[in-house]
Amino acid sequence: MHTYQELQEKVQLGFESHCLPQTPRELYDPMRYLLHLNGKRIRPCLLLMGANLFTNRIDPFIEQSMAMEIFHNFTLMHDDIMDQAPLRRGKPTVHEKWNTPIAILSGDAMLVEAYKLLLKSPEQKIKPILELFNKMATQVCEGQQMDMNFETSGKVTIGEYLYMIELKTAVLLGASLKIGGILADASENNNDHLYEFGKNLGIAFQLQDDLLDVYGDSSKFGKQVGGDILANKKTFLLIRALELSQGPVLEELMAWLTTPVFDPNEKIEAVKEIYNQLNLPEKVQDQITFYHDKAVSHLENIQVEETRKQVLEELIDSLLYRQY
Amino acid sequence: MHTYQELQEKVQLGFESHCLPQTPRELYDPMRYLLHLNGKRIRPCLLLMGANLFTNRIDPFIEQSMAMEIFHNFTLMHDDIMDQAPLRRGKPTVHEKWNTPIAILSGDAMLVEAYKLLLKSPEQKIKPILELFNKMATQVCEGQQMDMNFETSGKVTIGEYLYMIELKTAVLLGASLKIGGILADASENNNDHLYEFGKNLGIAFQLQDDLLDVYGDSSKFGKQVGGDILANKKTFLLIRALELSQGPVLEELMAWLTTPVFDPNEKIEAVKEIYNQLNLPEKVQDQITFYHDKAVSHLENIQVEETRKQVLEELIDSLLYRQY
Repeated sequence: MHTYQELQEKVQLGFESHCLPQTPRELYDPMRYLLHLNGKRIRPCLLLMGANLFTNRIDPFIEQSMAMEIFHNFTLMHDDIMDQAPLRRGKPTVHEKWNTPIAILSGDAMLVEAYKLLLKSPEQKIKPILELFNKMATQVCEGQQMDMNFETSGKVTIGEYLYMIELKTAVLLGASLKIGGILADASENNNDHLYEFGKNLGIAFQLQDDLLDVYGDSSKFGKQVGGDILANKKTFLLIRALELSQGPVLEELMAWLTTPVFDPNEKIEAVKEIYNQLNLPEKVQDQITFYHDKAVSHLENIQVEETRKQVLEELIDSLLYRQY
Repeated sequence: MHTYQELQEKVQLGFESHCLPQTPRELYDPMRYLLHLNGKRIRPCLLLMGANLFTNRIDPFIEQSMAMEIFHNFTLMHDDIMDQAPLRRGKPTVHEKWNTPIAILSGDAMLVEAYKLLLKSPEQKIKPILELFNKMATQVCEGQQMDMNFETSGKVTIGEYLYMIELKTAVLLGASLKIGGILADASENNNDHLYEFGKNLGIAFQLQDDLLDVYGDSSKFGKQVGGDILANKKTFLLIRALELSQGPVLEELMAWLTTPVFDPNEKIEAVKEIYNQLNLPEKVQDQITFYHDKAVSHLENIQVEETRKQVLEELIDSLLYRQY
C-alpha cells in the first residue's frame, strides 16, 4: 500500500515525463503552467488509491490518474474565465497571464488530452471508464452552471446548494476512485461503494471549504479569508443564515448584502458575527459530520482486507480536519 | 446508396429525436439553438457517406454522425467567442444571445456530448474511432490557435496558411469520412484513402471559401462579401498578394491594410482590384484544382464498386462549384 505522499510523487513523475507538444506555444504553455502550479493532486491520488485497494500493481494506471488531474485543471481554466478570477493558487490565472481566447482554447485541448490518456486503458475497460467519465464531466458542467445561476437567482435552498456541490465538486472525486477500482478489476459492488465514498467525501470537503473561507487561518488558507462574504457567494453559510435569521438580524444581513459601498473587513466581521449568533459553524460542522459518516460507511462496506483501507481513512482525516 | 439530401434528412430526424436534458436551461438551450440553426450537416453526412460506400446498413451510425456535427458546433460556439463574432448563420451567436460564460460552458458540455454519442459505437470500434477523433480534435484546436496567431504575426507563408486550414477545417472532414469507414468495416487501406480524400476536399473547400468571401454573390453567400478584406484576414489571397505585389501596388495594399479610417466598400473594391491585377482568382482556382485532383485520386483508389462512389463525386461538385 502506498501513502498519499508516495502516490503524489508518482503522479508528479508522470507529469514530468509527460510530453505535450511545443507548438503552438500559446496552446500548450498554459496547460503546462497550470499543471505545474503545485496542486495537491487529490484526484489522481484518489484514482491510484482506488486501484491500490485491490492491487499492488498501480504503475500502469498513472496516465489515467493524470487524466483526472488534467480534467480538473481544464475546469479550473474555464471556471476562472467565467468567474473573472485574477489568481489561482496565488499565481495569475491563464486568461490574465495570456488572454481569454487562449484560456478557452487551451482548456478545450486539455479536455481532449484527458480523453487521450484515458484511452490508454486496457481495451475492455475503455467503455465503462469513459461512460463514467462522460457522465461525470456533464455533471460537472451542470454544477458549474447551477453555481453561476445562483449568483443571480433570488432564493437558493440548501437542497439546491448541496446538489450543486455534489455535481460541481463531489462526483469528480467519486469517479476518480471508481475508475481506479475499475482498472484494478474490483467488483461492481465495491466500485459503487468507492464512488459513493468519494462523492460524500467531496460534499463534506466542499462544506469544509465554505467554513474555512470564513473561519480559516489566513496564513494557511491560500485564498483570501472572507472572500465568499465579500462576493455575497451563496454558500451553505449564507443560505442557512438567510433561512434562519429574522427581524433586525435579517435586516442587518440584507443591508450588508445590498450595500454597494463598504469596508471589506467591517463587512466580513459583521457577517461573521451574524453567522456566530445563528450557531452556523456548529450547523455546518454537523453537516460535514453527516457526509463524513456516510463516506466512512461506504468505505466500510467495501469488501477488501481492512488494512488496505488505512490510506483512505487517513485521507479523510487530512482532508476534513485541515485547518486551512 | 443514399443521396446527400436523404442523409441530411436522416441526420435531421436524429437531432429531432435526440433528447438533451431540460435543465440547467442555460447549459442546454444554447446547444439546441446552435444545432438547429440550419447548418448544412456536411460532417455527419460525410460520416454516413463514408459508411454507405461499404454497407447499405447505415442507420446504426446516425448517432456517431451527429457526434461530428455536435463537435463542429462546439468549435463554432467557442471560436465565435474568440473572434467576437456577433452573427452565426445570420443569427446572434451564443455569447451574444446569452453571455460568454454560458457559451464557454455550453460548448464544453457539447464536446462531452460528442464523446457520449461516439461511445455508442460497437465495443471493438470504440478505441480506433476515439483515437482518430482525439487526434483530430487536438489538431482542430492547434489550427484555431495558429489562425489566431496569424492575426498578430507579421509574416505568414502560404505553407503555414495551408497547414493551418488543414488542421482547422480539413482534418474534421477526413475524420468524419474515416469514422464512417471504420464503422462499416472497411479495410485500413480504404479508410486511409477516405481520410485523405476528405482532408484534400476540405482544403479545397476552404480555399473556395476564401475566394467566395471576395468574389461571391452577396445574395447567396450568407456572410458579408468582403468581410475578410475589411478584417485584414490573412487568407490565401492576402498572403499571396503580399508575396507577389511590388512597388506602388504593394504600397497601395499596405496603405489599405494599415489605415484605421476607410470607407468599407471603397476598401473592398480597391483590394479586389489589386487581387485582380495579380491574377489571384486564377491562382486560387489552380490551388483548388490541385487539392480537388488529389481528393479525386484518393477516391479513385478506394477499392469498392465504382457506382457506390457517385454520391461522393456529386458532393465534390456541389461543394467546390458552389457560387455562394
